[in-house]
Amino acid sequence: MSTATRSVGAPADLGARYRQVRRFTEELAAPLSAEDQTVQTMPDVSPTKWHRAHTTWFFETFVLGPHVPGYDEVDPAYGFLFNSYYEGVGPRHARPQRGFLTRPGIAEIAEYRRAVDDAMGALLDTGVTPEVAALVELGLHHEQQHQELLLMDIKHVLASNPLRPSYAEADGPPARAEPSPSGDDWIAHPGGVVAVGHDGDGFAFDNEGPRHETLLQPFALRAGLVTNGEWLEFIDDGGYRDPALWMSDGWGAVQSREWQAPEYWIRDSFGWTVQTLAGARPVDPDEPVVHVSWYEADAFARWAGCRLPSEAEWEAVAADRAPAAPDGGTWSLHPRAGGEQWCTEVWQWTASPYAPYPGYQPAAGAVGEYNGKFMVNQQVLRGGACITPPRHTRLTYRNFYYPGSRWPFTGLRLAVDK
Amino acid sequence: MSTATRSVGAPADLGARYRQVRRFTEELAAPLSAEDQTVQTMPDVSPTKWHRAHTTWFFETFVLGPHVPGYDEVDPAYGFLFNSYYEGVGPRHARPQRGFLTRPGIAEIAEYRRAVDDAMGALLDTGVTPEVAALVELGLHHEQQHQELLLMDIKHVLASNPLRPSYAEADGPPARAEPSPSGDDWIAHPGGVVAVGHDGDGFAFDNEGPRHETLLQPFALRAGLVTNGEWLEFIDDGGYRDPALWMSDGWGAVQSREWQAPEYWIRDSFGWTVQTLAGARPVDPDEPVVHVSWYEADAFARWAGCRLPSEAEWEAVAADRAPAAPDGGTWSLHPRAGGEQWCTEVWQWTASPYAPYPGYQPAAGAVGEYNGKFMVNQQVLRGGACITPPRHTRLTYRNFYYPGSRWPFTGLRLAVDK
Amino acid sequence: MSTATRSVGAPADLGARYRQVRRFTEELAAPLSAEDQTVQTMPDVSPTKWHRAHTTWFFETFVLGPHVPGYDEVDPAYGFLFNSYYEGVGPRHARPQRGFLTRPGIAEIAEYRRAVDDAMGALLDTGVTPEVAALVELGLHHEQQHQELLLMDIKHVLASNPLRPSYAEADGPPARAEPSPSGDDWIAHPGGVVAVGHDGDGFAFDNEGPRHETLLQPFALRAGLVTNGEWLEFIDDGGYRDPALWMSDGWGAVQSREWQAPEYWIRDSFGWTVQTLAGARPVDPDEPVVHVSWYEADAFARWAGCRLPSEAEWEAVAADRAPAAPDGGTWSLHPRAGGEQWCTEVWQWTASPYAPYPGYQPAAGAVGEYNGKFMVNQQVLRGGACITPPRHTRLTYRNFYYPGSRWPFTGLRLAVDK
Amino acid sequence: MSTATRSVGAPADLGARYRQVRRFTEELAAPLSAEDQTVQTMPDVSPTKWHRAHTTWFFETFVLGPHVPGYDEVDPAYGFLFNSYYEGVGPRHARPQRGFLTRPGIAEIAEYRRAVDDAMGALLDTGVTPEVAALVELGLHHEQQHQELLLMDIKHVLASNPLRPSYAEADGPPARAEPSPSGDDWIAHPGGVVAVGHDGDGFAFDNEGPRHETLLQPFALRAGLVTNGEWLEFIDDGGYRDPALWMSDGWGAVQSREWQAPEYWIRDSFGWTVQTLAGARPVDPDEPVVHVSWYEADAFARWAGCRLPSEAEWEAVAADRAPAAPDGGTWSLHPRAGGEQWCTEVWQWTASPYAPYPGYQPAAGAVGEYNGKFMVNQQVLRGGACITPPRHTRLTYRNFYYPGSRWPFTGLRLAVDK
Repeated sequence: MSTATRSVGAPADLGARYRQVRRFTEELAAPLSAEDQTVQTMPDVSPTKWHRAHTTWFFETFVLGPHVPGYDEVDPAYGFLFNSYYEGVGPRHARPQRGFLTRPGIAEIAEYRRAVDDAMGALLDTGVTPEVAALVELGLHHEQQHQELLLMDIKHVLASNPLRPSYAEADGPPARAEPSPSGDDWIAHPGGVVAVGHDGDGFAFDNEGPRHETLLQPFALRAGLVTNGEWLEFIDDGGYRDPALWMSDGWGAVQSREWQAPEYWIRDSFGWTVQTLAGARPVDPDEPVVHVSWYEADAFARWAGCRLPSEAEWEAVAADRAPAAPDGGTWSLHPRAGGEQWCTEVWQWTASPYAPYPGYQPAAGAVGEYNGKFMVNQQVLRGGACITPPRHTRLTYRNFYYPGSRWPFTGLRLAVDK
Repeated sequence: MSTATRSVGAPADLGARYRQVRRFTEELAAPLSAEDQTVQTMPDVSPTKWHRAHTTWFFETFVLGPHVPGYDEVDPAYGFLFNSYYEGVGPRHARPQRGFLTRPGIAEIAEYRRAVDDAMGALLDTGVTPEVAALVELGLHHEQQHQELLLMDIKHVLASNPLRPSYAEADGPPARAEPSPSGDDWIAHPGGVVAVGHDGDGFAFDNEGPRHETLLQPFALRAGLVTNGEWLEFIDDGGYRDPALWMSDGWGAVQSREWQAPEYWIRDSFGWTVQTLAGARPVDPDEPVVHVSWYEADAFARWAGCRLPSEAEWEAVAADRAPAAPDGGTWSLHPRAGGEQWCTEVWQWTASPYAPYPGYQPAAGAVGEYNGKFMVNQQVLRGGACITPPRHTRLTYRNFYYPGSRWPFTGLRLAVDK
Repeated sequence: MSTATRSVGAPADLGARYRQVRRFTEELAAPLSAEDQTVQTMPDVSPTKWHRAHTTWFFETFVLGPHVPGYDEVDPAYGFLFNSYYEGVGPRHARPQRGFLTRPGIAEIAEYRRAVDDAMGALLDTGVTPEVAALVELGLHHEQQHQELLLMDIKHVLASNPLRPSYAEADGPPARAEPSPSGDDWIAHPGGVVAVGHDGDGFAFDNEGPRHETLLQPFALRAGLVTNGEWLEFIDDGGYRDPALWMSDGWGAVQSREWQAPEYWIRDSFGWTVQTLAGARPVDPDEPVVHVSWYEADAFARWAGCRLPSEAEWEAVAADRAPAAPDGGTWSLHPRAGGEQWCTEVWQWTASPYAPYPGYQPAAGAVGEYNGKFMVNQQVLRGGACITPPRHTRLTYRNFYYPGSRWPFTGLRLAVDK
Repeated sequence: MSTATRSVGAPADLGARYRQVRRFTEELAAPLSAEDQTVQTMPDVSPTKWHRAHTTWFFETFVLGPHVPGYDEVDPAYGFLFNSYYEGVGPRHARPQRGFLTRPGIAEIAEYRRAVDDAMGALLDTGVTPEVAALVELGLHHEQQHQELLLMDIKHVLASNPLRPSYAEADGPPARAEPSPSGDDWIAHPGGVVAVGHDGDGFAFDNEGPRHETLLQPFALRAGLVTNGEWLEFIDDGGYRDPALWMSDGWGAVQSREWQAPEYWIRDSFGWTVQTLAGARPVDPDEPVVHVSWYEADAFARWAGCRLPSEAEWEAVAADRAPAAPDGGTWSLHPRAGGEQWCTEVWQWTASPYAPYPGYQPAAGAVGEYNGKFMVNQQVLRGGACITPPRHTRLTYRNFYYPGSRWPFTGLRLAVDK
């Protein structure tokens, strides 16, 4: 996950925002027991309590340590335990062994959070320089990323349990704010030179810029996301058994990992069910499909006679269709049907490999580690998911995962040449 | 770990023994947090809460279910989660994923134990048939085995944490009840036909019998265990670097696993320290060495110009030297110096591969799974460890581990031909 | 390796070209014994005799079978053994086990080649339709790709032998046709809209088109390739030890594969030597560096304060600097110093992930398998290597390998923003 | 394979024996092409040409080098390439990479053999000391072991080829010298103290001694080997699907390696066929079963209500039934039906783990590497196989393999308690 910033304002209400974001992390952890918060079920997954500590370490390491004279770190060992991948800050605990750490326990981590929050509150109350405000802003966006990871990760943990426990009770039937677009609704774009990337006005991660021009051919994007119903057709048509639909690496993954449906789908004698954070439920054909890898999204698009959009195509159209507050009040535990859903239900795989924009430069120092160092072997996703924290989406946001990843909330939108 | 029995009495105080053994498990778990009790740091290790539940499942499955009319199991899912390896009882959760189970949590497992203890108490209070008494007795010995495993396993868990937490505070300096034998004290035996194995009087696991005669050549055993001081000489003499001392498979393990000292030893600029359940301490040259694999024990013996004893040799001499109550009151968290220590400080690797005695037959039914099914690729250990529960050692006890295992409390005693 | 074509002429001398290309394969195999031609030293490597047979199978399967009435295949089993990855043609022998095939031996494979060449000669002598001519042309380019692979692969095989045998005697000191550019010679380009990709005039693989416009920012490329001398500076400056220079995946490769220098470099007490197809020789600081992975090329560029070029940047400049016959008479066993070397000494890693051009469509049928199915997880290389067969390079040629590959003849050219 | 000796005579005809044994190796290699002789299909397998060179290296290293003044080794590199596992002689080429060596080729290895044979002939013609005679005798027995390995290994190589080539033409229908014993023919033994092991009269490997007494319980052995017909009953009765029949490690192997029949058996729509060195043929129910692992042999015995014999039991009975020349003239490419077959058709798995006899001491020096260093994790086999070279079997011979090995010619004979 990216943490470096290109540009930041110094909002007056930074202290309030700090408290709000930090509190939301604790609210997300609240339904989880000490046992739930400790376990790691695959190397990609981090324990809940590790997320709570790592986000705290970020403020301690990059804000309090350098900018509060005489600040004493809560525990000198935490730097080793809770550094994720910042080589510039020193050695760290091996990622696949985060689940071996039974201590510090959740009580000590709550205490760690309180101590850092107290120090941060005191600092923010006194007013901070723009430089420090930028670091705090970055830390808050970083924590929001981990709020999403926390939910992705605990979903994997709980789904690894044969008891199939829920993270939380379902919050009633999913809302359908607006009718779903028809599968035949396409949004055409004439191509030509378009500008993409963040313009520096407000917060963005460094990988979203520089804003620059690029040249598109004419194309169209589907108005709605690919749905479970369409995915069931793909399955029933033998999509997982036809190598002609797949990238060579994808076909290898299908065979070695025995994929037959999206992650968290289970077929029993009554049909398909899906494990959600709110428990198991029948697969709803109207909902957007979620938890498919890039390989599957790419094969599906080929099966459908379409292709995945490039990230520039996605951004050019989304800028027309969803120009304003893309994420107002839509947070939920599972994607819902209804509307065009540019930034609200699932991250949308693109055809674009994750690579630097022309002129990209990573930020200086360890805080600048690294969007850049992940810019190979991964694919860009655009939009945002139902579990993405409120006010954490942007039309220029570049999310990225390996093409075989299925534990993020990943779906797709189709494109065609015109 | 073996669970099948050959012979058992029906003691009048079975109810009292049941409560005592069950309570001791809970006492062992008491210092551990919910987080501590959940984690699995390698496939061999089981979480503390799994041990607590599995031993309870044993009584529910083999005693309450078959012998209490109308007994309702506490949770039908527990049979799947807490079966260890009894193929005859049905499918089970994969061993390397025991650490993925965050639920049931420790509170639910405590409740599970209470419910089963209540039912068992009611059953035992009414009096039971000899058959049921034998099953209960077996269950108690099974639980004692898991008490030892619980400590071995939590030691590995805590030692995997860079903070190096202790399981419990040290209970004062280790006692030295009697002087250690000299390294030159040897106990000669003339060889000839000796009888070994359990005679059926009192409890034993099925693999300890039938008692039978075997023929020994003249030999001698060292009166004392191999000590840390002797092991340091082996290290300093290049023992871990000379392939001529090692079995071929052992030398492969030295190289691939980069062994340079016993498990849990750490060298820093001040010398060797050892991680114990009571924290780190300097290596004490007088203590028996512990946490060495069979490969290391075998190489050490060769370096010393000796060999490991066969299990029959061990039993023949131990029967002379430690005929009575071998384990009175010696339980501790770490092996101590002093005395001949036949059954008190460390399990002692023997030269004997683990194989059935002549005429061995496993017990019938799933409860008879299985000492027998482990009788290949492992080596026998004799004696008992400081963490072996009181009254759980016997001179005929046949413990067994793979020759590369280092997480049990394993040491050695030397033998020579005469 | 890609085999599908977009466009093809029907040259009058197709029969002569056929014989010439086929003969060159045999000339390349001639110095190799039966033993040399049989072995596979890693999954990426194919045995020499497999290359000889697979290229023959291509003509038999796609030309003779469909287009010669009554043609009988030489051996029905060869379709299974010598299909590389064409899913549309049926199942095939597993790639990592190509080295298990001792039969057919090289004599039977020579016979196979002769039989197919006879049938092809008869077919070509009678004149063929443009469709068949296109398939033959494709088969010849396919065979030329395998000529290069054959040399890459046998280099790996021979270098795996502690005797370090040579493939062939050195052909005298390497020629230096023209002086090397200075490391300070840069070729500036103003950016703007440029057209890239093959225009359909003459043969090209399908992945080279459609020709299309793209938008570039101002930039400059280095006139000369990165040299061994520069690479030695990178090593000496700790390039392989500084994680800040590396992509995250690249740093993982450095550590797990213990890279400290390019593949085939060996350091002894006298300095660095390099194993070439013509034997070991001291590393020549003036020669272009070869056998570096994309990860290394990318890290080197960062260390140098530069970056890798995009493939469009490369093509735009190369079209100016090397517009004509890019490959005349430069074939050799090892890269040589001298000149700008756009298409002559080493394949040049680019910053571009391998992805389809806008509007790309794979050819229909099995012959169209697949440039397309490899368009993820790999990086594009441009130019051509010293071992690339004569007349097999094009300015639009898109070669591709995984970013960790080091056994191709891979080097780099630097770029900077302007 | 074991190479150290305890005792050796100095036969007058040593030169003749040398030539005879050496020639037989070449006869075994004669049907194999250069390609056949080069390949390694799994780490256990060595290439034919490696066997030819390694056995030659043995004479050069242990006889010519130390005992012929001024002897110059044929190639200094061969010591590194052709040392198998003698740590005392220095480093060596990694075993899993023996198949990477294309050079020296078979012509050079033939030349190596000739050069060493010439030097050995000259030495033997002049007469040698008893010490040298003992080394030569050891080298010849070592070479005979490799003659058997050569055939085991090439069988695996050829069976890995989908063309299923034969090593040699079938030599007519297999002979049946004598009627097979009935499955109900058992040979009872009263038990008691018996002497086992080699008495030092004539050649034996060091692991066959010292001869010593051991104590047996009453038992009986089956007169005949277990047959394919019996094995088919085991398969049809679900033997490969019932975990209750298997050792825990064996059941793991059944599942992970998907065993459903002996190695080299293939089921098609016409029934079971078996790949032999002389090609595929239908499974003959009267032939002894071959190519089963110890795990399978042990499970079969349990299914049959029997057990495997201990090696002492085997030797005690065999000494009565087959006291004289156990191996006269029975060499063949595949086991045949008929007779009791103590030492003639298949190696017979025993219940005995491979461990040292009481008082065992390995020979001194590198030549004494090592029967001893393999004495853990393996099981003893007794008897001899159809491909064991003439005059290479002994009633005291202790062969040994890991319990999961299936590529040796391994079968079984049943035992029961009395």
